Amino acid sequence: MKPSSSQSEQSFPAGQPFPHGLLDAIDTDARTDAAVDDRALLAAMLRVEAAMARAAARAGVVPDEAADAIADTCRPERFDIGDLGRRAVSTGAPVAALVADIGVLLPDYAKPWVHFGATTQDVVDTALMLLARDALDVVTERLVAAAGHCASLASEHRDTLQVARTLGQQALPSTFGAKAAGWLAALDDALAGLTGVRDGRLAVQFGGAAGTLAPLGEHGVEVLGLLAEQLGLAEPTLPWHTARGRVHELAGALGTALAALGKIATDVVFCAGTEVAELAEPEGSGGSSAMPHKQNPIRSALTIAAARRSPGLVGTLLSAGLAENERAAGSWHAEWQPLRELLRLAGGAAARAEEVLGGLRVYPQAMRRNLELTGGLLMAESVTTRLAGPLGRQRAHELVTEACRRAVAEGSGLRAVLLADPSVREHLSTADIDAALDPSGYLGSAGRFVDRALAAHPGKA
Amino acid sequence: MKPSSSQSEQSFPAGQPFPHGLLDAIDTDARTDAAVDDRALLAAMLRVEAAMARAAARAGVVPDEAADAIADTCRPERFDIGDLGRRAVSTGAPVAALVADIGVLLPDYAKPWVHFGATTQDVVDTALMLLARDALDVVTERLVAAAGHCASLASEHRDTLQVARTLGQQALPSTFGAKAAGWLAALDDALAGLTGVRDGRLAVQFGGAAGTLAPLGEHGVEVLGLLAEQLGLAEPTLPWHTARGRVHELAGALGTALAALGKIATDVVFCAGTEVAELAEPEGSGGSSAMPHKQNPIRSALTIAAARRSPGLVGTLLSAGLAENERAAGSWHAEWQPLRELLRLAGGAAARAEEVLGGLRVYPQAMRRNLELTGGLLMAESVTTRLAGPLGRQRAHELVTEACRRAVAEGSGLRAVLLADPSVREHLSTADIDAALDPSGYLGSAGRFVDRALAAHPGKA
Amino acid sequence: MKPSSSQSEQSFPAGQPFPHGLLDAIDTDARTDAAVDDRALLAAMLRVEAAMARAAARAGVVPDEAADAIADTCRPERFDIGDLGRRAVSTGAPVAALVADIGVLLPDYAKPWVHFGATTQDVVDTALMLLARDALDVVTERLVAAAGHCASLASEHRDTLQVARTLGQQALPSTFGAKAAGWLAALDDALAGLTGVRDGRLAVQFGGAAGTLAPLGEHGVEVLGLLAEQLGLAEPTLPWHTARGRVHELAGALGTALAALGKIATDVVFCAGTEVAELAEPEGSGGSSAMPHKQNPIRSALTIAAARRSPGLVGTLLSAGLAENERAAGSWHAEWQPLRELLRLAGGAAARAEEVLGGLRVYPQAMRRNLELTGGLLMAESVTTRLAGPLGRQRAHELVTEACRRAVAEGSGLRAVLLADPSVREHLSTADIDAALDPSGYLGSAGRFVDRALAAHPGKA
Amino acid sequence: MKPSSSQSEQSFPAGQPFPHGLLDAIDTDARTDAAVDDRALLAAMLRVEAAMARAAARAGVVPDEAADAIADTCRPERFDIGDLGRRAVSTGAPVAALVADIGVLLPDYAKPWVHFGATTQDVVDTALMLLARDALDVVTERLVAAAGHCASLASEHRDTLQVARTLGQQALPSTFGAKAAGWLAALDDALAGLTGVRDGRLAVQFGGAAGTLAPLGEHGVEVLGLLAEQLGLAEPTLPWHTARGRVHELAGALGTALAALGKIATDVVFCAGTEVAELAEPEGSGGSSAMPHKQNPIRSALTIAAARRSPGLVGTLLSAGLAENERAAGSWHAEWQPLRELLRLAGGAAARAEEVLGGLRVYPQAMRRNLELTGGLLMAESVTTRLAGPLGRQRAHELVTEACRRAVAEGSGLRAVLLADPSVREHLSTADIDAALDPSGYLGSAGRFVDRALAAHPGKA
Repeated sequence: MKPSSSQSEQSFPAGQPFPHGLLDAIDTDARTDAAVDDRALLAAMLRVEAAMARAAARAGVVPDEAADAIADTCRPERFDIGDLGRRAVSTGAPVAALVADIGVLLPDYAKPWVHFGATTQDVVDTALMLLARDALDVVTERLVAAAGHCASLASEHRDTLQVARTLGQQALPSTFGAKAAGWLAALDDALAGLTGVRDGRLAVQFGGAAGTLAPLGEHGVEVLGLLAEQLGLAEPTLPWHTARGRVHELAGALGTALAALGKIATDVVFCAGTEVAELAEPEGSGGSSAMPHKQNPIRSALTIAAARRSPGLVGTLLSAGLAENERAAGSWHAEWQPLRELLRLAGGAAARAEEVLGGLRVYPQAMRRNLELTGGLLMAESVTTRLAGPLGRQRAHELVTEACRRAVAEGSGLRAVLLADPSVREHLSTADIDAALDPSGYLGSAGRFVDRALAAHPGKA
Repeated sequence: MKPSSSQSEQSFPAGQPFPHGLLDAIDTDARTDAAVDDRALLAAMLRVEAAMARAAARAGVVPDEAADAIADTCRPERFDIGDLGRRAVSTGAPVAALVADIGVLLPDYAKPWVHFGATTQDVVDTALMLLARDALDVVTERLVAAAGHCASLASEHRDTLQVARTLGQQALPSTFGAKAAGWLAALDDALAGLTGVRDGRLAVQFGGAAGTLAPLGEHGVEVLGLLAEQLGLAEPTLPWHTARGRVHELAGALGTALAALGKIATDVVFCAGTEVAELAEPEGSGGSSAMPHKQNPIRSALTIAAARRSPGLVGTLLSAGLAENERAAGSWHAEWQPLRELLRLAGGAAARAEEVLGGLRVYPQAMRRNLELTGGLLMAESVTTRLAGPLGRQRAHELVTEACRRAVAEGSGLRAVLLADPSVREHLSTADIDAALDPSGYLGSAGRFVDRALAAHPGKA
Repeated sequence: MKPSSSQSEQSFPAGQPFPHGLLDAIDTDARTDAAVDDRALLAAMLRVEAAMARAAARAGVVPDEAADAIADTCRPERFDIGDLGRRAVSTGAPVAALVADIGVLLPDYAKPWVHFGATTQDVVDTALMLLARDALDVVTERLVAAAGHCASLASEHRDTLQVARTLGQQALPSTFGAKAAGWLAALDDALAGLTGVRDGRLAVQFGGAAGTLAPLGEHGVEVLGLLAEQLGLAEPTLPWHTARGRVHELAGALGTALAALGKIATDVVFCAGTEVAELAEPEGSGGSSAMPHKQNPIRSALTIAAARRSPGLVGTLLSAGLAENERAAGSWHAEWQPLRELLRLAGGAAARAEEVLGGLRVYPQAMRRNLELTGGLLMAESVTTRLAGPLGRQRAHELVTEACRRAVAEGSGLRAVLLADPSVREHLSTADIDAALDPSGYLGSAGRFVDRALAAHPGKA
Repeated sequence: MKPSSSQSEQSFPAGQPFPHGLLDAIDTDARTDAAVDDRALLAAMLRVEAAMARAAARAGVVPDEAADAIADTCRPERFDIGDLGRRAVSTGAPVAALVADIGVLLPDYAKPWVHFGATTQDVVDTALMLLARDALDVVTERLVAAAGHCASLASEHRDTLQVARTLGQQALPSTFGAKAAGWLAALDDALAGLTGVRDGRLAVQFGGAAGTLAPLGEHGVEVLGLLAEQLGLAEPTLPWHTARGRVHELAGALGTALAALGKIATDVVFCAGTEVAELAEPEGSGGSSAMPHKQNPIRSALTIAAARRSPGLVGTLLSAGLAENERAAGSWHAEWQPLRELLRLAGGAAARAEEVLGGLRVYPQAMRRNLELTGGLLMAESVTTRLAGPLGRQRAHELVTEACRRAVAEGSGLRAVLLADPSVREHLSTADIDAALDPSGYLGSAGRFVDRALAAHPGKA
């Protein structure tokens, strides 16, 4: 054990960014990383130890001066992460070593009161809840910004024509605004879920070795309440050492958010493809030294990577819910890294979405060009609708299907075929046909859907 | 295509239970199965087709008599599940075949209006939401009952001593009431999550081929609202063909509930073990023909099996969120069976929990016997607490640790060692020592935690 | 219990296909379904009971005539799947009910010898291994066919130019043959994995209630060997009731195969997209009634759906490996359906791959057209390579990067810019430039890679 | 970019262990960590760059002196992991920055030849294969040791009676040797799987930007072969940029091994439980400061945690197999951390298994005591078997079932009931009854199964 100040100064160089690993920065961003990294975890565990002492002091269980000394000692720069980590192996958690190190630094009168009445899981669980809150604050801030960008895109491109694609095939005309409105609604929903968990379900854990808080005698419930107050976390009805619903709800909300971000990124990658070329990520990354013509949608690719990793992590957290008795042998331990990883990935994906959506390059002309690729076949349903009045839907459908077949076979475009077809011309003038083939005339509720998404967007004011 | 009535009567024999498969009944129960099985799905799809026609008729888009004819035709007994299933392969969904079969049964004037403006996904998604609602109704009803049983157990056994175990080791005395209160709180939380999704997030899907509802012209949004009203589902801001957050929230809530049920079952299996023997499942199942002494906790084992299958299903649903463009090629299709499976498993696990908790056999004497297995070592912390006043916590801890070591080495029990130790006897009388070793005197907040869980239980009135 | 013949005849209508459910046929194909469905499982369980009796008879443990009677009785048409399924709930498996039903049909002298020495898990595990073998036979047969189609495509299109795409961006010229050779190698690898598991790891399970085969006295090991011989499965060293490595290896090999199929399907969907249009699925499915111009790559979409569901199922099977003691409470039960589901999905995906690859429509002209979309920018690396000789790589790289930038800015195509650049013209003639810009001159080892994949293909002869 | 030597010395302090994070040491062990940590990854990437240059030089593509200079420069201590990591974000991988830093350190004549013909994925994939090989060497070494310990336990305790438990219930007598033999066989199987992947499937990746190795002209295949030779990895038929079967097979083998280890750990935790107390982990960890009587089976708990995290990671790797075109946008990037994590967890779990099994404390007396808990009911099947000769199996079964019922009801033990039952005494003497009730007389093939597992154990010599 070496809680020396010189050591710790080396670990926490003032004003310097934490040295990221080779791959870590790819997965997340600096702010999220700072919220969940090992320094943050150490700081949170110390904050929990200090708050437990203060809460117990306020309840009269622990002497005030002991609580003061503990709180004063619980400063991260006095502890050595690497050393704590190595010593964590023998008990399976870094808490016993930390408590021992705190003890070494305490005056004798305070020594017996550090970690009083608590168990390792109280400290780790509560610290992870603090990390989750800090990380969620970053994640939600970025999702709010990303949603704001979606709102701007939806508003600006409310009427920008873009083809809707299903199973990779062009289907019908729609607008880029409608696509962006769909992104917006998904992010707003994801935000509602995350905010609900953040505000209502992140709770203090405090139960002692067996969940009874026995060493606190009559004062257990009171200290629990004071501790929750101190840390700004929810006060649970009772300890949740093996009732992991809070973790599951957090995991579910993060998984939902990552999927929403992954969907947007999937769309960006598709639309940024060379053949489609309707969107491009903002400049500033994704260049390829070997291939000067390429600009890889790398931020979206990394967001997809994060979204692909999320289901396995959520699944792991759920499967760790099979926690026997009053503390599980292994399933609890299986939560720690996946939970932090999920928070990291959500932060990284949200940061990338904010960047990409904030500077997304939109190419309406390319959207228009692609819309014309099928030579009007896309508009078959529109023509059918026009013909259905005079002919009935059945007959109209047959006529148009036949016209489409001829247009494909002859390579002449649907307009030419329709113009040349007497059964059609009997009911539709050239102007009628042109109107029926005009994508902007067959958008249905696309615009109103955009308006509705904007109206429902909480940040609209 | 054979929508003949003779066929369908064979498929739906009046008053007969649907023939379960060899393994299906193990996973679920009859009521849940009836809510999500193929007949329920067919019925729901038909209900959607009928409601779309009626909603469009109320908006003036579809002739009233066509809507009437469609609604009249959309009765499950007129269709052949096996045949629809076989024909589903070529389009990848059973909707086109179903619409064709409806058409065959319709009068000519109604034929053009069936499925008007809709796409396959509108029907499947909305039908699955209806299934989810019906299944959730069963699941929540059973969870309410299971939670009620937990409340009764917690109340009745508020002060029944049972040892708390951590990592498989006896830790400290607690109560069976506290354990049951933990189950109760977890089920109440799970119920809140499921109810929130059921009431707020199960929405109608209606967007047509491209999410614009183009064939409905100006009436798209109106019909969407009317459809939601008819089906009693939420009205979404816009179509969610590739914004799958609703499915993810549903999956998350189901996964959370299954984990809570799995935790209870894990505890029951442990406590029903031959060496522990503190609990047993109700009679009536689990007998072993080969081993007359055994009563397998089979319902809990099956609940554990369900909870173990849930994370993979939730993960699959989340990973299907990477849905490109306006309809995904494959990820949407990957949702159907896992979602139904998750609902089935939740229903089965809830049913089994209700049964097990409703008839759980509790053996307080065995709990008491196990509490004494360590010869008082369990109570070391209690003795330390008593000695801490006169001796200080540090010294008290050392004394007790040494006494425990001797008790183990000599096999004499902690009481004898303490009684024989002059340093202890200086401060504690025989009565003091007996009080310190009495488990019922060292329960901390266990009773109050039970009270809190009961007070927080919504069904307490 | 109703093992009546009239009942069973209803369950197994002669010569009729089993009625698929609404969604089941989408996930799999008829042959795989027949290999793993409930009838197949019942038949396999009966085959195991018969083989156990015969093996024990050959070892002298069971009277020959009893074994004969048992084997004679164990015919699926005499049993009622639905009834067995319903009665399976109380013991958590359909075996006790099945054994009881067999007993009812047996003459008295044979009654005591049915299921002699065995436990439920022996029957279910061995039956599932038989199902796995039958399903793998279908899966591998189809994968062999699919690989053969890949070999044909690779061979035929060894030199068909197609652009290579990375992160959705056109990267460099390659060939469709190289893409198909990659598919081929992946399928051949997947086949090797599946065949290894099929031939070496599918084993009989036979251990009796506790894994000791105690009722068989001295004859346990002998009967185990005879049983393995009878069923054509591997003979394990010892029972594997809670050593689930065989299941994990099977799951891993299936997951690997499904991922390989999913990758091919992903490529087909991308290349069949309207804007790319280089490939199309064979005719015969995927039509859209609403949109006559569309042909959905539905078989590939369904293959992707299968591949997306596989990781959750593999994960579930692996997580069920945490099996305590000599039979796990729940984790074993969690294997049955996921394993069958994985086999079903593999069969369906393999069937679809065989169809799609066997009739894949390849459009070399579209491949060529797309290759020219960037106006020669794709060939920048090729030009750099040519200039590197006279200029050094560094200078060559700078020159070409600048030329590309100008080509993009001026929209003039790289050829024009190069022709007009004196620093380039100093070293390259017009013919040199044209050669450098010719995609077919910059294919590196693409052709040899195709040759290698074909040479390594086991079915090449 | 700061590849300064002073910096790098700070990153790699001579002779000092790498500072573990707070939680990392819990998941793995020092040797595995050193095989897969960021330093190892950097070193492997540099090794790949050096080997590529040398291989190309041997093929005559790159000048020898340039290759020498590159190889000389590619020493990890000259590079700054933190800085590379930060710069990795803009391209989504740390390779471009690394190549740039190498370039800065190179003489001009060598600059153009670093990374010649290669793409980022070639370096990362090949480096990860090198990491996998090094990690597998640690993992397999430890599994061999762990299997050796199992063999010793199986051999030593071949005849040590221990009850077999199914679904938590005592079932029949067996031996601890049989349990250990089951562990042994599972580890041997897992080792075979890992060794197969290590020796046959870890391959070099080398395809260049598009998988054609175009810049290498005619020499691509030759350089590929030389590179494989240099690195001691398999030579693939063709690049596998989007054919991820090798990764899937590796993941499957690791997942299988982790499940086997997790099963052993699950058994240890169960048997170390206070009420069972048949096994205990070796001394030296798991102490609880709060509860002196406890010794937590912490190493087994951490092994279970690792095994619980594995399925999500394997699932993630499988789901990343849906890799489009010639390089996937995101799914490839989703592999890196999960693969390293899986290797780390396997190493940690194997290390812990080696420790636990090497010092496992076995308590045969406790095993014997537990065997007697049911007062002989366990032996019912044995008595039935004895009576079946004279009475027929049916009648024998009825008699014994009734005797068991009486023994339970009267609490008198089965022996007393049998001795008092005239129908029994007619056929069995007191000595017969005692023999029938002797667990060691009803072990069936337990001993032979142990012998078989030992005989099949590769390390037996």
